[in-house]
Amino acid sequence: MPVRWYSNVVDCHDPVAQGLWWSEVLSWRVLYQSDEETVLIPPWMGTDAVSHEEWAHYPPGMVFVRVSEDKQVKNRLHMDLAPHTKDDWDEEVARLLGMGANEVSVGQKDVPWTVLTDPEGNEFCVLRSRDR
Amino acid sequence: MPVRWYSNVVDCHDPVAQGLWWSEVLSWRVLYQSDEETVLIPPWMGTDAVSHEEWAHYPPGMVFVRVSEDKQVKNRLHMDLAPHTKDDWDEEVARLLGMGANEVSVGQKDVPWTVLTDPEGNEFCVLRSRDR
Repeated sequence: MPVRWYSNVVDCHDPVAQGLWWSEVLSWRVLYQSDEETVLIPPWMGTDAVSHEEWAHYPPGMVFVRVSEDKQVKNRLHMDLAPHTKDDWDEEVARLLGMGANEVSVGQKDVPWTVLTDPEGNEFCVLRSRDR
Repeated sequence: MPVRWYSNVVDCHDPVAQGLWWSEVLSWRVLYQSDEETVLIPPWMGTDAVSHEEWAHYPPGMVFVRVSEDKQVKNRLHMDLAPHTKDDWDEEVARLLGMGANEVSVGQKDVPWTVLTDPEGNEFCVLRSRDR
């Protein structure tokens, strides 16, 4: 493994609010927070230096950075989320809507997922519960 | 962990070419490929049903889906890649440029990363080598 996928970086107007919102969505830990940037990592990830192999298996984190530009078009790149079959899909979607997510149409027809947006309008999907 | 981050979905004109390109960037495995969609997962991930805990620790995959729209603006969401300190940053960037990545300016100044684009113009950064 030459390079690893280290993080998703999301442009936003309010990195503090966006970071906290997504940390609640994923139950992730806020590793760093300032007016300019919030960094999230999965709660089981350590922050000490690790071997090449251990590091290579780490999942990417999320970074929210402040920009002045507004969001203009549907994002070319979006995140899919999914609950496990042990979790209830309807309950999860209701939880996200209760947190301020909005249900939107991006032209999808009868599909096994729902399309939501975060508080700054970034589209993401919630796939049906699965275990693989 | 209620929902997990399941994948990044990238709109593109050519899901086959884009999927192969990114599988080479990350040394990932092509799990599924059609004219409409390519799915990539890390090579160490299994495809059998797994427990909630094991599944929750899986990193997200990548999905490339065909769309008719062209990319219009700088992506609001992009991926950061990084080599480990055991890997050589310059060599990695040279490898990506050799594969057809382009170096671009998105207004960054003197920063410890470089900004590249993939064959369809999606921006991504290569951070300096690290071990955490």
